[in-house]
Amino acid sequence: MSTIFKQIIDGDIPCHKVFENEHVLAFLDVAPLSRGHTLVIPKEEAATLDALSPESGAALGEALVHVAKAVCKATGVSDYNVLQNNGASAHQAVFHVHFHIIPKFENSGLGIEWSSGELNDAEETAASIRLAIETV
Amino acid sequence: MSTIFKQIIDGDIPCHKVFENEHVLAFLDVAPLSRGHTLVIPKEEAATLDALSPESGAALGEALVHVAKAVCKATGVSDYNVLQNNGASAHQAVFHVHFHIIPKFENSGLGIEWSSGELNDAEETAASIRLAIETV
Repeated sequence: MSTIFKQIIDGDIPCHKVFENEHVLAFLDVAPLSRGHTLVIPKEEAATLDALSPESGAALGEALVHVAKAVCKATGVSDYNVLQNNGASAHQAVFHVHFHIIPKFENSGLGIEWSSGELNDAEETAASIRLAIETV
Repeated sequence: MSTIFKQIIDGDIPCHKVFENEHVLAFLDVAPLSRGHTLVIPKEEAATLDALSPESGAALGEALVHVAKAVCKATGVSDYNVLQNNGASAHQAVFHVHFHIIPKFENSGLGIEWSSGELNDAEETAASIRLAIETV
């Protein structure tokens, strides 16, 4: 069964489109955290970022810069968050990759709880990620 | 005055590096929200995403896919958040673009407060962003 975002890409469900190219579509979030809250999604179907092709990743990165610039200009904000959630426990609700661009106004935007800790076993952790980099 | 991330890029300050290519560097966050919390940064100096070149944006997007895959494999998590903050009021502390990859474990990771509202003036907002897209 296709996600709601796939149905938007296919034109089966309408959206408030702000940008589109060969690989990427951007449109307003229908339940915004603030005015101008925009979603940037790949046309490629992938549930999570790690499942995406490098080509779509690159196209998304380039589009994020472009759309962020336009959202800032249109809304007048300079501060904003870019958030991309993977997995239900990480707050993902639609299982098609999507980046949120969320303008930060004084009383609206993304709320963040930042509970940082110590960096333990740093070299062991870094080494395990470096090893994985070569094999993924 | 150069940021701490520029000094890391230049090799003047050490880091726990996990990935590097021509445009991008990735290393462990020294004050992690969870095990495997990794930063992916462009070598280009830009304070916020909207100030970045399209080339660096594309390189970052491609690297995010690759590094996210490795972080998942190395940590064993499937759920994680990707967060990029712009401006002090949006929780940015170092003024050099950086994407956080934050693994979500049961008791650690990114805390999110999601206070969504109604999409008002949707077509007006979308039109203003579309207009800005053509002029930024």
